[in-house]
Amino acid sequence: MADGAIAADQLKLLIERIERLEEEKKAIADDVKDVYAEAKANGYDTKIMRKIVALRKMERHELQEQDALLETYRAAVGLS
Amino acid sequence: MADGAIAADQLKLLIERIERLEEEKKAIADDVKDVYAEAKANGYDTKIMRKIVALRKMERHELQEQDALLETYRAAVGLS
Amino acid sequence: MADGAIAADQLKLLIERIERLEEEKKAIADDVKDVYAEAKANGYDTKIMRKIVALRKMERHELQEQDALLETYRAAVGLS
Amino acid sequence: MADGAIAADQLKLLIERIERLEEEKKAIADDVKDVYAEAKANGYDTKIMRKIVALRKMERHELQEQDALLETYRAAVGLS
Repeated sequence: MADGAIAADQLKLLIERIERLEEEKKAIADDVKDVYAEAKANGYDTKIMRKIVALRKMERHELQEQDALLETYRAAVGLS
Repeated sequence: MADGAIAADQLKLLIERIERLEEEKKAIADDVKDVYAEAKANGYDTKIMRKIVALRKMERHELQEQDALLETYRAAVGLS
Repeated sequence: MADGAIAADQLKLLIERIERLEEEKKAIADDVKDVYAEAKANGYDTKIMRKIVALRKMERHELQEQDALLETYRAAVGLS
Repeated sequence: MADGAIAADQLKLLIERIERLEEEKKAIADDVKDVYAEAKANGYDTKIMRKIVALRKMERHELQEQDALLETYRAAVGLS
């Protein structure tokens, strides 16, 4: 019984920590949206910006390999 | 009461139709996985193949515009 | 060179198989949407229907265990 | 030309702001994972915890309505 009460309190504390973190994460996700909105308002294409963000996460040699393969595959299916 | 029973039957039939369709969808998704696995076994890069599938969905002029913008943006952030 | 041409043809065939399968999958996904739309038009709550579809995928004993845990956890955080 | 250079700088700054925010978001997402890992280590079922987090986001009356509908629908398809 006492254990049950302790466990319930512990569970509630864990849930509340998660909720606070999720709120912070949501606030940052909103900030990201704001930057994209600002970029769009300045004439940038946000779909392409998202691709740039993804490409910049890659190692230089990975990116070069991906570029080369993509070019080869595009040629193979008539997309060049 | 009679209405409740009718509604319950109707709901069950709707759910069962959805389940059958979801099973078919799952079977096709498994087939797609199989084709990618076969491609991988033949030495193809499946990540690049997925990009090709996405690019082929685009209209030719959209793709050309995206290619051009991507090149410009990559140059702007030093990814060319 | 000959190999390159063969590989290009093989890649194109693989891509086309994937595209056909993806089209079939899309058609079934549209059928699923239609059933949910029909259900909604008949007054059913489709969010709850999706939960039912998920619950029906579970083994009976798993579902019972989940029900029991959910009740305990809800009580612990004041959601009962 | 001058405009092109300015635009390139502006784009780079926007991308860098997004990258910093994405890093912060990633750090918080990792913190959330850590809390769930801690919960799991203490014997809690994290799948159920995630359901609790979702339920707590709902308004009380929405939750009551969902509970009632779920019970009705489960009974209709033999899941009670």
